[in-house]
Amino acid sequence: MMRGKTFIISGPSGVGKSTVLSALLEKRKNLYFSVSATTRDPRPGELDGIHYHFMDAESFRKWIAMDQFLEYAEYVGNFYGTPKRFVDEAMDKGQDVILDIEVQGALQVTSKRPDTVKIFIAPPSWKELERRLKDRGTDDPEKVQKRLLRAKVEFQTAHTYDYFVINDTVEDAVRELDAIITAEHCKPKERMSVLAE
Amino acid sequence: MMRGKTFIISGPSGVGKSTVLSALLEKRKNLYFSVSATTRDPRPGELDGIHYHFMDAESFRKWIAMDQFLEYAEYVGNFYGTPKRFVDEAMDKGQDVILDIEVQGALQVTSKRPDTVKIFIAPPSWKELERRLKDRGTDDPEKVQKRLLRAKVEFQTAHTYDYFVINDTVEDAVRELDAIITAEHCKPKERMSVLAE
Repeated sequence: MMRGKTFIISGPSGVGKSTVLSALLEKRKNLYFSVSATTRDPRPGELDGIHYHFMDAESFRKWIAMDQFLEYAEYVGNFYGTPKRFVDEAMDKGQDVILDIEVQGALQVTSKRPDTVKIFIAPPSWKELERRLKDRGTDDPEKVQKRLLRAKVEFQTAHTYDYFVINDTVEDAVRELDAIITAEHCKPKERMSVLAE
Repeated sequence: MMRGKTFIISGPSGVGKSTVLSALLEKRKNLYFSVSATTRDPRPGELDGIHYHFMDAESFRKWIAMDQFLEYAEYVGNFYGTPKRFVDEAMDKGQDVILDIEVQGALQVTSKRPDTVKIFIAPPSWKELERRLKDRGTDDPEKVQKRLLRAKVEFQTAHTYDYFVINDTVEDAVRELDAIITAEHCKPKERMSVLAE
């Protein structure tokens, strides 16, 4: 059995990443969606191991010291990270792994594991991203502008990504993500062993 | 409109390349299958511009002198080559171009145009390739062994290819080729201009 591969998916807030990823997981059954670890408290309805792996700060620090994270960050007093263990277990089972992380985390992962494939999901235009952020109705106008600015800053690093998927329609974005995963499994490094005698 | 890309497809005799390519052309309508130029005489039923662009040796040499070929070779006294013009015209129209050429020709093309994508089509095993060559019934046992040896030699250069598609079933091979073409259009170089302001 072929070992799975890891795919990082990044993209600005409001681009529609979670809708696209749900549809992708529906289409490709052999994907493992990596669940982050965090030290923040569960919110009502959040389940351990489903939404997050909830940990106390002491355990989290211990895991950092033992190099148990592919990437981690501190954000408003809480830690968030990608545990190596679950990723490796899934890959060993032949599953491909999806990491939904932002550009800083992506840099940490690829510095440790250069063969990780990085995909950036972008809006069809900045105007459209602004429209989507406004339509969500969760942010006031000032917050929307802050998110837009952050998206443009993140976009500066998008050229370091391997692929660039434009979420114009969910259907097209999923088709492209699906194609990228299939194509990545056709790289000679992985395949040539088949005919080595 | 996005400019098309060029994809080289190589693979040993007997691997089933033409069946796979016909099915691919059926599936993706926006592909242009490059027709080679040759100085050999048309065989019964062969049509100019469909099977080959038939040329006399003098014209062929003139085209070589004018750098009008992406690659060319002499084989048993006849010239064969890939005219640049038709490839460029198709790409300008936004079509992706398929070049069905062997490994030496592929090296010539990529030295001129490094952004050409190279795909190697391989059999699931050497035993299976031998079986397919025998089943065709066109070659005597000695010729089959020669073709097998040649396939193994060509395979030594397969690691220089970008992708490696194993023709186990035509359906899977076509699905992978289709995915590779889609994925290659998601490279940042091509896509990022969309959001450049």
